[in-house]
Amino acid sequence: MKIVLVGASGTIGRAVAAELGQRHELVCVGHSSGELQVDMADPASIARLFGHVGAFDALVCTAGKVPFAPLQSLGPEQFDAGLHHKLMGQVNLVLQGLPLARDGGSFTLTSGLLNDEPIRQGAAAATVNGALEGFVQAAALELPRGLRINLVSPTVIAEALPRLAALFRGVPPVSAEQAALGYARSVEGAQTGRIYRIGWVRDR
Amino acid sequence: MKIVLVGASGTIGRAVAAELGQRHELVCVGHSSGELQVDMADPASIARLFGHVGAFDALVCTAGKVPFAPLQSLGPEQFDAGLHHKLMGQVNLVLQGLPLARDGGSFTLTSGLLNDEPIRQGAAAATVNGALEGFVQAAALELPRGLRINLVSPTVIAEALPRLAALFRGVPPVSAEQAALGYARSVEGAQTGRIYRIGWVRDR
Repeated sequence: MKIVLVGASGTIGRAVAAELGQRHELVCVGHSSGELQVDMADPASIARLFGHVGAFDALVCTAGKVPFAPLQSLGPEQFDAGLHHKLMGQVNLVLQGLPLARDGGSFTLTSGLLNDEPIRQGAAAATVNGALEGFVQAAALELPRGLRINLVSPTVIAEALPRLAALFRGVPPVSAEQAALGYARSVEGAQTGRIYRIGWVRDR
Repeated sequence: MKIVLVGASGTIGRAVAAELGQRHELVCVGHSSGELQVDMADPASIARLFGHVGAFDALVCTAGKVPFAPLQSLGPEQFDAGLHHKLMGQVNLVLQGLPLARDGGSFTLTSGLLNDEPIRQGAAAATVNGALEGFVQAAALELPRGLRINLVSPTVIAEALPRLAALFRGVPPVSAEQAALGYARSVEGAQTGRIYRIGWVRDR
């Protein structure tokens, strides 16, 4: 398979590249590194990316920025920043990538546990992650030509804990290598509309 | 209690007014009707609304527009329309209303079943509803002064079925009167961070 990996230089992205690169051709995309660059928050930049990529079998996105701050200091600008980058960046990768995805291909996006297991300062992240869950489950119903879409929702990544520990006290982490298995399951499995929760369960 | 009801002239809003108006003072707010008007998509309009409203005990929002269209005809503009109105309109009512809410007061927002029970043409609605679930659960952790926040997620409303039937074939409806009970439970109950699903259950 030819797999487009957006966020290839990030903590999760590198682990996904190590896992899927064993068996597939990767096109590594980053914000400022990789074979190709994209600004996910800019639909025109996504269009240019796909102009270079051409046809593909799978697209995986492990990128997406969202601000963390106390609720009462989050204004519309902070929410919009997360909605434009992590949410609409990924949605636009799907909408614009659709015509280039080969029959039976797949899209795999990334959210995280904070919508169902919230933390302080995480309201914008929770909003974006919940939105991604809704989008993926709905989009799966309407994708043509046997195309599939799934979401990987990892708990906090062990390699990121040194800088995130104060926000995630007591939250059991997983390694990026463990999280990468969720992406392999999505890309190489047969399911669609699934949310692969890695390292946590929805308990209500 | 003094309850601000945004969307008071809508199908659900009228039923909520009938239920809560029996026991409480209502400030009825609409887009173009009611005692006060607001354009939810415009933070400046929300600021003007609260300038007229002053202190309150509860805010209920039963309003929120989101476009319905086949996935492949939904562009960023359509997603943004739903994100700005139904999502950020309600988020901004909370963020801007916070300083005016009296100790122990509450916010009750509205989503819908489409994030977990998607339908064709519902991808933008599913995205917005999922976002609202994430926001409410996270915001509940950080509200000060005993303030509470909940979400009412009704199935399709019987009174709206004449115009929505083709989208919601086979989905059991509830009356607006039944949905209104969810709002009473949120406003007059003690819970926070809850999603009151009316007429449907999350089965996974």
